[in-house]
Amino acid sequence: MTPIAVELPKAYRLLNHGPTVLVSSAHGARRNVMAAAWNMALDYTPAKVCVVIDKATFTRELVDASGEFVLNVPQRDQAAAVLAAGHRSGREIADRDEGSDKFAALGLDTWPASRVAAPLVAGCLAWLECRLIAEPHNQQVYDLYIGEVLAAWADPRAFAHGHWLPDAAPSLHYIAGGSFFETGPVLNLPLR
Amino acid sequence: MTPIAVELPKAYRLLNHGPTVLVSSAHGARRNVMAAAWNMALDYTPAKVCVVIDKATFTRELVDASGEFVLNVPQRDQAAAVLAAGHRSGREIADRDEGSDKFAALGLDTWPASRVAAPLVAGCLAWLECRLIAEPHNQQVYDLYIGEVLAAWADPRAFAHGHWLPDAAPSLHYIAGGSFFETGPVLNLPLR
Repeated sequence: MTPIAVELPKAYRLLNHGPTVLVSSAHGARRNVMAAAWNMALDYTPAKVCVVIDKATFTRELVDASGEFVLNVPQRDQAAAVLAAGHRSGREIADRDEGSDKFAALGLDTWPASRVAAPLVAGCLAWLECRLIAEPHNQQVYDLYIGEVLAAWADPRAFAHGHWLPDAAPSLHYIAGGSFFETGPVLNLPLR
Repeated sequence: MTPIAVELPKAYRLLNHGPTVLVSSAHGARRNVMAAAWNMALDYTPAKVCVVIDKATFTRELVDASGEFVLNVPQRDQAAAVLAAGHRSGREIADRDEGSDKFAALGLDTWPASRVAAPLVAGCLAWLECRLIAEPHNQQVYDLYIGEVLAAWADPRAFAHGHWLPDAAPSLHYIAGGSFFETGPVLNLPLR
């Protein structure tokens, strides 16, 4: 599977239905991945997104240092890794074994991104490569990070020509504990 | 059906899975409702939420004037009204017929809220009554509104004791055009 480019004014559609994402980040030789249910699209063009990144996270350290992050939209078969990404600290993994990182610990393969150093998580449905728009007040007071989408990609079996496809694997919508809603059936209404 | 109170530190769970919401607002005798796919939880305690409210909307005028809004989580049977709420302007409806408003035009009944003047949309799965946390820079530059949740309610058939129930009607996850994903099955994983 080779990801296809998503035109940037349509990138919001990758997040519009509210999936939980994986946030990947990198700075120098260090990289990390965390789960984030608290994300949303913020604008069409230039395409922007929001995500909440807690002060305690290793991801925050890397995003602050690099000014970049990737939102990866995982699918049902990755649920165990998404759950583990939300419960294990990449800082602890990196401190314990200098040659390892959280991707390796969770069994997540990565691909290089096109515009940022943060990697894409292989096997996801879609990817948004983002440049941090620094907003220190939001970051400090609300843990709220805003990014401009520099490039967006999708698995062509899941999303093409600006639309999710009927055969797309379900995405994950976090509830709490070990539970997610899967994306369900599509409801099509006439536009009046 | 009588809504039950949701304890505020669990209010984020009403939005965690990414549903499209209806934003209701009121100021003086005027009131309105719009649809918003771009919303997310922002904090546990005090409970906070984010929602994007475009400058062109009547909702924005009422939220700015009142400093309050309600996020209503609609369910599948309300999809046509949610779609219409996203396409029709409450300002035009109010201007055309002084005695009417968008709730009436869309056939949406309302209930009074407990802490704010904005009404609750009857028939929804859950409701978050919010006080605007004024952040003029976010509002002006990003159309980004932050609210503190003052009270939260749920249909007890859908959400109780901090959890979505198996028999809850599906919520709506907007895609584009006239299409929504419905919330699908629950995936339960062991917590390790």
